[in-house]
Amino acid sequence: MTGTRERILAATNESFRLRGFHATSLKHITAAAGAPTGSVYHFFPGGKDELAREVVVTSGEAYRQLFELIADEAGDVSSAVVAFFESAAAVLEETDYLDPCPIGTVAREVASTNDVLRAATEQVFASWVATLDARLRAAGVPAGEARPLATTIVAALEGGFVLARVRRDAMPLRAVGDSMRELVDGARTRGALLRK
Amino acid sequence: MTGTRERILAATNESFRLRGFHATSLKHITAAAGAPTGSVYHFFPGGKDELAREVVVTSGEAYRQLFELIADEAGDVSSAVVAFFESAAAVLEETDYLDPCPIGTVAREVASTNDVLRAATEQVFASWVATLDARLRAAGVPAGEARPLATTIVAALEGGFVLARVRRDAMPLRAVGDSMRELVDGARTRGALLRK
Repeated sequence: MTGTRERILAATNESFRLRGFHATSLKHITAAAGAPTGSVYHFFPGGKDELAREVVVTSGEAYRQLFELIADEAGDVSSAVVAFFESAAAVLEETDYLDPCPIGTVAREVASTNDVLRAATEQVFASWVATLDARLRAAGVPAGEARPLATTIVAALEGGFVLARVRRDAMPLRAVGDSMRELVDGARTRGALLRK
Repeated sequence: MTGTRERILAATNESFRLRGFHATSLKHITAAAGAPTGSVYHFFPGGKDELAREVVVTSGEAYRQLFELIADEAGDVSSAVVAFFESAAAVLEETDYLDPCPIGTVAREVASTNDVLRAATEQVFASWVATLDARLRAAGVPAGEARPLATTIVAALEGGFVLARVRRDAMPLRAVGDSMRELVDGARTRGALLRK
């Protein structure tokens, strides 16, 4: 059995995916983690905010590494982008449309009201954009285009989660993935022409 | 002075943009609306859920009409899409990065936990996709491409709000708008070739 701290983190992650930040109570978390009431403060003296920050940062990094893994396997950034959207669509279908991402709902709930958590979500999205930016440039996307395109892809992923969840249908995420491939292919073609 | 019901709706709309659904209390709403405690139930016997549904549906329809207006003025669907993203970016900057959309945060908070509100947000996004779909087809986008492209644009708009708010910078929304124009232009070009 995993340690109490890890079970608290996993339960918080799952609750954020199900109901977001504000509706997640420490009671939900300790009950789901099979942990004593009050144990959150033992591991996270800053309480719910510190716990939330840890979930955002660690799950953000896990997703970033998952994308790198998919990109290494795909060999090609266009295929990697499509594979990543397809894998998110499959997760949605397998989990009865639980949010694949514990960060997006929290980000929007706290953006104007909790600056520490806002900054944590900003840091995660920036790390995703930076990873994609590097992959796009390595695949021949012109340097000036890579960062805005990476930004669009991360935005479209987060928005795709919204539409797919409320429709209870992963189609929107697949439509977005196809559009993102078209943008990546277009940018790579322009890069190849520039290098001629 | 506008009526109490209208002030309650406006205060709820603003609170959803600031802090989302779960963190919005009826006390927040009546205080901001200058309305007596308990007055929400007078106008909305179903309480917070009924009020939220009304805000989602009416503000969703208002945004749909705003897009139609911008599209009529722009004359051209590509310019309309860019103008709509630019107008959302300007709203963000003018409001200290308050969410331009009262629906997106709520959608993600309730998608797995409140089926009446989930269905209301689904209905709004479907109406936006239908409006864009019709505009894209009228502008020469092939029929089979118009709906997935409209879906991508709505998703990218919602995700653009997330990234812009957490960065406190409207750049992501403008980058997304430029990418969406590229997709629309590409689809229109394919449509023109098909008709030759």
